[in-house]
Amino acid sequence: MKLMEKIELPSRRFTDIATSVGINDIVNLSNQLEAKGRKIYHLEMGRPDFDSPKLAKDAVKKALDDGFVHYPDLKGVYELRLAVSKKLKRENGIDISPENVLITVGAQGALMAVMMTVLNEGDEVIVPTPCFGAYPGTCKILGAKMIAAVCKQEDGFVLRASAVEPLVTDRTRMIMINTPNNPTGAIIDRAELEGIAEIAKKHDLLVVSDECYEHFQYDGRHVSIASLPGMEDRAVTVGAASKTYSMTGWRVGYLGMPSWLSSYATRTHIYMTTCPTIFAQYGYAEALDRADDDVRAMVREYKERRDLVAGYLKEMEKIDFVMPRGAFYFFPSIKRTGMSAAEFCGNILEKAGVALVPGEAFEAPGFVRLAYCKPKDYLVEAMENIKSAMAR
Amino acid sequence: MKLMEKIELPSRRFTDIATSVGINDIVNLSNQLEAKGRKIYHLEMGRPDFDSPKLAKDAVKKALDDGFVHYPDLKGVYELRLAVSKKLKRENGIDISPENVLITVGAQGALMAVMMTVLNEGDEVIVPTPCFGAYPGTCKILGAKMIAAVCKQEDGFVLRASAVEPLVTDRTRMIMINTPNNPTGAIIDRAELEGIAEIAKKHDLLVVSDECYEHFQYDGRHVSIASLPGMEDRAVTVGAASKTYSMTGWRVGYLGMPSWLSSYATRTHIYMTTCPTIFAQYGYAEALDRADDDVRAMVREYKERRDLVAGYLKEMEKIDFVMPRGAFYFFPSIKRTGMSAAEFCGNILEKAGVALVPGEAFEAPGFVRLAYCKPKDYLVEAMENIKSAMAR
Repeated sequence: MKLMEKIELPSRRFTDIATSVGINDIVNLSNQLEAKGRKIYHLEMGRPDFDSPKLAKDAVKKALDDGFVHYPDLKGVYELRLAVSKKLKRENGIDISPENVLITVGAQGALMAVMMTVLNEGDEVIVPTPCFGAYPGTCKILGAKMIAAVCKQEDGFVLRASAVEPLVTDRTRMIMINTPNNPTGAIIDRAELEGIAEIAKKHDLLVVSDECYEHFQYDGRHVSIASLPGMEDRAVTVGAASKTYSMTGWRVGYLGMPSWLSSYATRTHIYMTTCPTIFAQYGYAEALDRADDDVRAMVREYKERRDLVAGYLKEMEKIDFVMPRGAFYFFPSIKRTGMSAAEFCGNILEKAGVALVPGEAFEAPGFVRLAYCKPKDYLVEAMENIKSAMAR
Repeated sequence: MKLMEKIELPSRRFTDIATSVGINDIVNLSNQLEAKGRKIYHLEMGRPDFDSPKLAKDAVKKALDDGFVHYPDLKGVYELRLAVSKKLKRENGIDISPENVLITVGAQGALMAVMMTVLNEGDEVIVPTPCFGAYPGTCKILGAKMIAAVCKQEDGFVLRASAVEPLVTDRTRMIMINTPNNPTGAIIDRAELEGIAEIAKKHDLLVVSDECYEHFQYDGRHVSIASLPGMEDRAVTVGAASKTYSMTGWRVGYLGMPSWLSSYATRTHIYMTTCPTIFAQYGYAEALDRADDDVRAMVREYKERRDLVAGYLKEMEKIDFVMPRGAFYFFPSIKRTGMSAAEFCGNILEKAGVALVPGEAFEAPGFVRLAYCKPKDYLVEAMENIKSAMAR
């Protein structure tokens, strides 16, 4: 008898989610090159180079000293839920009591919890593409069907409400939005958000809004769809410490939810994780209350880096790109090189020693993602290398 | 139009999992009483009263100072995977390389990740009962069917391999074991584990072994089913920092897996959480390597507490109990009081001010769980109150 022949692997939950691990393939390849002594520039991961705010670290140390090492309220430490509730009011114009805030294991835990709570097998989720690879993967694991609302480069990758409505069917349950967008840096402006809100109300849909990059906007002001009239009962806001405060390894985020959803999503998240690390929660609360200066300094720096990288990309003949308005990525088209994105990334990794991610990981073949959350001198070296490799 | 009428809540994933929140009902009720100024003794949660080991806290502070605040390897920090691999070899006689260790958000994250990876809708999982409430809940969320292997009080709640085999069908994929058991404190001895291993081999089943309480055994020595001949490819070992090191709020645990399963379960856990908090991982690594003395001191203390509580229970006329051999719970029958477990717990909470959990939360009506992970003087006061209330 063959070992474990009864168990299908990959199980039916995982059918066809290979593309979502595009980042991992590049990471593995670059690890191999580094093992051979090659210097590799890592522009593949959205892993900021800034340290986390000192006051957040100090709050963790204090929590440890004060004995906050056991199970907290499984919805999250009250002080943090209060800090999130205040932040949503102050910055986003959203009224959500601490009772309806769930502290999650990062934005990833938030997304899985809300989707697992709401979606039944066969339900449809409208997702604007290009998109973060976790959205299609999570849909597939849950047996839901992702319906892509394709945002084109020639439109600046902006989601149009008019592109969403034709995709609504009887089985649609959720519209997933992400503004600013990973990987394109596109922002959904108020007028389009209003259009999406109208569609949600007309067709009785839930909107899940991933706003992890909300602070990284280089023009204009962030608008949360949950703040629009009539959306308080049908919009879920997802946020996290990871990008805003350069705290990716802390694994704390939140769901701001309508009350009808809150107790169910909490239960799901408990079954997935019990709760996030208690002392990391105290650090996040401190950052939300007091780290605005750190964020402003990072945003200024990111804007300079964006402009620096844009200067290089403009000089590259076969590269077409849209200037990102937010987040910390470029998502250029490499179609005119005649290569697939995977070929292009393999080539650049080998010839320029720079790791990028093929667009397939974001449901967008023909593009590559470049993360510019690195120091300027590092970016200059990486971009000079790409330039030379492209010239050859 | 009714708001959100398209969304079924509770969704089909949650049909009938109400019993799993039995602990929460009692917590809510006792919160209400406390809000009115009543002193409540908390014997409902498995939340140890010991502080976490100082060396683990120091390792967290060092990790923060050293800048370990960003995404680590998503399988887990290498130092921790190595520490787990060494621990499994040293203490459990299991050979698993760091490559096949996945660091999870506690045992809960480990269980959900492995079950979500392996189970398809309609698959059957054999679970000995009484059991930790998360097992039936997780089965239901995933659309799998839990088949109870009932362990009777008159047999000391011990799982017999002979009781498992008749439950195997074409749809069985997994046997879930938990030794020492929460809530009964029963231990599965080597002979029965060998029997279960034979069944797994004969019927081509995976065994998931939750060994979170492995260090809390008051006689005999812990045996891991993954260490038995022929089980290296069909047993998964689940462990966590929570109970062993009194680190419940740290949320770090692990899966030790056969290599055929490892990359898939890793991917599932990434979709659920990305990874556990990086600096908590460094603390757990330190505890695994150096906190044996802390564990020994706790075990000595728990044994004394167990004997203290047993002394009280013996004096109570309508209470029947089995002396727990491990973990830190009693699971007495209250059937002869003529009350349901929920009535009994409500009564004791109101009259004695002691919070206990009704057995329904563990798939065992007629019983209650009492957690004795509290200081001795606290236990004395709580037990005296119960004694007086029972006498009235």
